[in-house]
Amino acid sequence: MNVSVLRIGHRLVRDDRVTTHVALVARAFGADAIYMTGILDESVKDTVADVSKRWGGSFRVEVVQDWKNLARVWKKEGGKVAHLTMYGINIDDMTERLCEESKILVIVGAEKVPQEVYSLADYNIAIGNQPHSEISALAIFLDRIFTGKQFRRVFADANLKIVPSEKGKKVQENR
Amino acid sequence: MNVSVLRIGHRLVRDDRVTTHVALVARAFGADAIYMTGILDESVKDTVADVSKRWGGSFRVEVVQDWKNLARVWKKEGGKVAHLTMYGINIDDMTERLCEESKILVIVGAEKVPQEVYSLADYNIAIGNQPHSEISALAIFLDRIFTGKQFRRVFADANLKIVPSEKGKKVQENR
Repeated sequence: MNVSVLRIGHRLVRDDRVTTHVALVARAFGADAIYMTGILDESVKDTVADVSKRWGGSFRVEVVQDWKNLARVWKKEGGKVAHLTMYGINIDDMTERLCEESKILVIVGAEKVPQEVYSLADYNIAIGNQPHSEISALAIFLDRIFTGKQFRRVFADANLKIVPSEKGKKVQENR
Repeated sequence: MNVSVLRIGHRLVRDDRVTTHVALVARAFGADAIYMTGILDESVKDTVADVSKRWGGSFRVEVVQDWKNLARVWKKEGGKVAHLTMYGINIDDMTERLCEESKILVIVGAEKVPQEVYSLADYNIAIGNQPHSEISALAIFLDRIFTGKQFRRVFADANLKIVPSEKGKKVQENR
């Protein structure tokens, strides 16, 4: 399945770290790309680019001016849009259906999301109906649709690779 | 199973939002309490208290001065300590064993964690061996040990309750 993430409503400075975490989750949990809107601090892009350089893979970060157009084009090309919201249908009631899709754009909002996102989305999905974090919501969503296999994934051209260990840190360098 | 979270290495201002998200994940995903160290902005405690008041449950936020003592007492009382780190053993190789425990303290560090945490922990657990976020790491850890059932949990004495819906927002108020 091809999955990309669209982060909307990012607010400069205030959201920089949370958006960086959202992007790192997208990458580590198997998405192909993240699209971000608004005025983005360069540090967000730089941090993710730096992680990709060291840890491998071909994850892309792109800044878009018109996210509605991105979503429209996505749907026109046969992709589906899933919006993560605590008001939606619980993920565990939807996983089976989602797993049948071939292309999903996951919308992850900052604090407040425009009403039209709810109608534009093919799926409004709740990761539980309690308030928590867009970072954890995205993680669980991707974990469900990739059925945990994302953690076994090998990232191509990595300079660094961890050897899992019971105590301490073991890292292989490939240079 | 009784699970509490210990957040160490919080840095004032810089980590406030991430720590708040960690606490909200702990609550929403079924932990009983979060212990936090260091100088904490009151806003972190206030936000979580406010969420608990509106959305129910008996989740506790406590500030501790000596986290090592907390962990020692925890172990003395028969509890186990699980430290989340990208260098550890993959969660999916450990879930079965973790599910046999009755009391787990989950240590979630900010940027850099003192070396002794690795030796003090009974389990060093990786949520994948790629860098992402302590927020997503905690979410997946709790999701695995509570086997997804945390999302069905009813929070006692809630003023607000969401009615899952396909489009828009439905909230029940109980006052």
